[in-house]
Amino acid sequence: MEMSKIGNFSEWYQTVLFDAGIVDIRYPVKGMPVYMPWGFQSLDYMFSFLEKLLDETGHQKMLFPVAIPESTFSKETEHIKGFEDEVLWITHGGLAPLEERLVLRPTSETAMYPMFALWARSHADLPIKIYQTTSVYRHETKATRPLIRGREVYWNEAHTSHATLDEAAQNVEEAIKIYSEFYKALCIPFVVIKRPEFDKFAGALYTYAFDTVMPDGRTLQIATAHNLGDNFAKAYDVKYSTETGEQRYACQTSYGISMRGLAAVISIHGDEKGLKLPFEIAPVQIVFVPIYSKDNNAAVDAVLRPVYESLRTLYRCRYDDSRKRPGEKYYFWELKGVPLRIEAGMRDLSEGKVTLVDRNGTKKQVAIAGIADEIPRAVDAYHKKLYADAKAFFDRHQFTANTVKELREMMDEYRGMIRIGWCGSMECAEELDKLEVGKILGYEKGNAKKRKCIICGRDGDEVIISKSY
Amino acid sequence: MEMSKIGNFSEWYQTVLFDAGIVDIRYPVKGMPVYMPWGFQSLDYMFSFLEKLLDETGHQKMLFPVAIPESTFSKETEHIKGFEDEVLWITHGGLAPLEERLVLRPTSETAMYPMFALWARSHADLPIKIYQTTSVYRHETKATRPLIRGREVYWNEAHTSHATLDEAAQNVEEAIKIYSEFYKALCIPFVVIKRPEFDKFAGALYTYAFDTVMPDGRTLQIATAHNLGDNFAKAYDVKYSTETGEQRYACQTSYGISMRGLAAVISIHGDEKGLKLPFEIAPVQIVFVPIYSKDNNAAVDAVLRPVYESLRTLYRCRYDDSRKRPGEKYYFWELKGVPLRIEAGMRDLSEGKVTLVDRNGTKKQVAIAGIADEIPRAVDAYHKKLYADAKAFFDRHQFTANTVKELREMMDEYRGMIRIGWCGSMECAEELDKLEVGKILGYEKGNAKKRKCIICGRDGDEVIISKSY
Repeated sequence: MEMSKIGNFSEWYQTVLFDAGIVDIRYPVKGMPVYMPWGFQSLDYMFSFLEKLLDETGHQKMLFPVAIPESTFSKETEHIKGFEDEVLWITHGGLAPLEERLVLRPTSETAMYPMFALWARSHADLPIKIYQTTSVYRHETKATRPLIRGREVYWNEAHTSHATLDEAAQNVEEAIKIYSEFYKALCIPFVVIKRPEFDKFAGALYTYAFDTVMPDGRTLQIATAHNLGDNFAKAYDVKYSTETGEQRYACQTSYGISMRGLAAVISIHGDEKGLKLPFEIAPVQIVFVPIYSKDNNAAVDAVLRPVYESLRTLYRCRYDDSRKRPGEKYYFWELKGVPLRIEAGMRDLSEGKVTLVDRNGTKKQVAIAGIADEIPRAVDAYHKKLYADAKAFFDRHQFTANTVKELREMMDEYRGMIRIGWCGSMECAEELDKLEVGKILGYEKGNAKKRKCIICGRDGDEVIISKSY
Repeated sequence: MEMSKIGNFSEWYQTVLFDAGIVDIRYPVKGMPVYMPWGFQSLDYMFSFLEKLLDETGHQKMLFPVAIPESTFSKETEHIKGFEDEVLWITHGGLAPLEERLVLRPTSETAMYPMFALWARSHADLPIKIYQTTSVYRHETKATRPLIRGREVYWNEAHTSHATLDEAAQNVEEAIKIYSEFYKALCIPFVVIKRPEFDKFAGALYTYAFDTVMPDGRTLQIATAHNLGDNFAKAYDVKYSTETGEQRYACQTSYGISMRGLAAVISIHGDEKGLKLPFEIAPVQIVFVPIYSKDNNAAVDAVLRPVYESLRTLYRCRYDDSRKRPGEKYYFWELKGVPLRIEAGMRDLSEGKVTLVDRNGTKKQVAIAGIADEIPRAVDAYHKKLYADAKAFFDRHQFTANTVKELREMMDEYRGMIRIGWCGSMECAEELDKLEVGKILGYEKGNAKKRKCIICGRDGDEVIISKSY
């Protein structure tokens, strides 16, 4: 492809998803694309990396059923109110109606917590920290967009139970640390934002979200973490006996990252040539391109293949000895976003050298003898530039507005994240809504700045407003 | 636990699934158990191993949607007839009925092949060889049994398209080779059986199945591979142009292994103490049990922990320094089926030795200096005995019957797989059905033996009959 994403993001995105083999949206159910091999494998490596971080912090991998009985689903009243308009219902088995309708999980609190009630008997059973990587389902009526908004959402959701509210709160902080590390490895800049009351997760005490800025200046929510307090514990009877034998409700948290993580990676790092995948998630991390001339294929392979063989015990490598010209191979693997390319013809090889090129275009001649040491350095440099470029774009889309006029102008001209003052009232939030300048994302974590409300002028807090996906 | 599985299999199975933390069947939807951490991780490693074999043979990992529109699902008439009684239907989104009902995939032929039709344009696009590891759904009305028969079936399904019927047939042979290697690594004996016409997959030309014998003498189908010919290609218009420009239908195959693989492993290898997991799928492959005495914990750990640290870069290891007595730890990790245990107290350690015990009870003193070399040998010996024990049981349940009287006696007394003659007619199959001596599994692959039909006495083939899950 040869298409700039700036000024043309939506078309660029659709094109790169198809051309690079990420998803095929021609499947006959709206909002349920097919994950193509390159796309699914990237997603799979992305979630494997997240799972590693979760494993290291004492979370256990499990799998819960997809279907939740209506009576179970309806127990937490806030939660069901938040979801009843958008769940999919299983009503028939074979030719007959089911005795009880089943919900396709839109998220798994109501599938998991009745089981937590069986497992959390005593304080010694806590904390429970588990996760699953699977799909959840929403009957989206808005326009769907692959990897961003769909009816089948592939994600990783973690759920925990704790003895006290304080431990639950600490666990939310841990989740934020894990997710920060995750997005750092993907070179994605973000802010952590506490959602306003009206936008928190249905049934939660409070919700933190990770937001990033997409190439069109709109923000994308790429993770959430909720402190559920004992709301769900009360609905599902998740009780334990304390050391003194008292019965107490557990306090719970839930947090998740979806395929939107991959949407962010594709959108933020991609360029006119295609994808730029972070090393951790690339299905092929290093591609070898032998440069043949005058039927010297065997001679080139004789030197270059052993280099490939030695590196493929450490990394996901591909040796591209197809009949295409080198330029065509470069084009193909650049479209796919492979982080590193090792290319070499006979002259280089006879001098004991290869050329190491990263997807940012940085080239370097490297001695074959030193190649194994060179890879981590090259990965590091590649990631530093990915992040620097992404952060520069992100920073250029951070603004502060003092008046509605400024806010309007900024939103028209630049989009991005705009800091304003807000008194916290629903009236002023609704007033902002009417202006169609975006929605209030909430309070940036760690930013306690006080500011006058941009609408009513009363005392308030600094919040971030944006147009969002 | 302390319970023999022989003569008591059903109770033993339920107990070990719960006690070892494989599944929890208290979830409020029949036939949809919760996979507990130890169970799901075993399953996950099992499928990762299968995926490795599929990757090595040119299959690509993908993910298709769970929902199939009714009109798409109904296109292949044999297939829909085979499944319409047992699919689950999604009929409502939110509070309103959907425009078109959706089937929860009972298997993915009808989800995948409309997409194959878009991808297979020319002979150069073939073969297509893909797979996914995910859940499929059946509205089972028979009694469900965890990991064996349920409404949510976690499995790996592979699907291929080929230019010719001959290539499709060869691919079925390749699938049989892959699955043979898979079950060999799990130390599970099996026979490969061509199903009779009346029991082949709905829409297939022919079906091969892998069957094994469970501890109660009933057989369990643990894999299937189907040659679909061009039946589905015609229904879904999977056409390609040949080198001469002619339009031709592709020939397809599909094959799958479900969580039943884990059911077989648990049932066939387990004993009165609990599980015996093959090394490849054990969430913990080697457990370290330090034997403390007289507050010498630090001294023991100082020598044993470095051994653990060196091995855990190669294997999934756990260092159990909990406050339990060594005997309790042995009991716990034996229940879990951990293949190898390394135990050592100060006396051993001061002589530079540890004791290596496998889950079959084989013990050996090993020098710490040589431990890394010893592990592969110990794994090999452990697997050899697992397989030898399983094979001995399997062989004791292979019989031949010449008369209905013999067949009846064998089925009453021993169960297992019984070889009889069958003329191939539906009349005689129905006559056998009425005797309630089991069902005809089909023709053992590679066995072309001719035998007189046990019912009518006409010429026929040797087939295997059994009571099955």
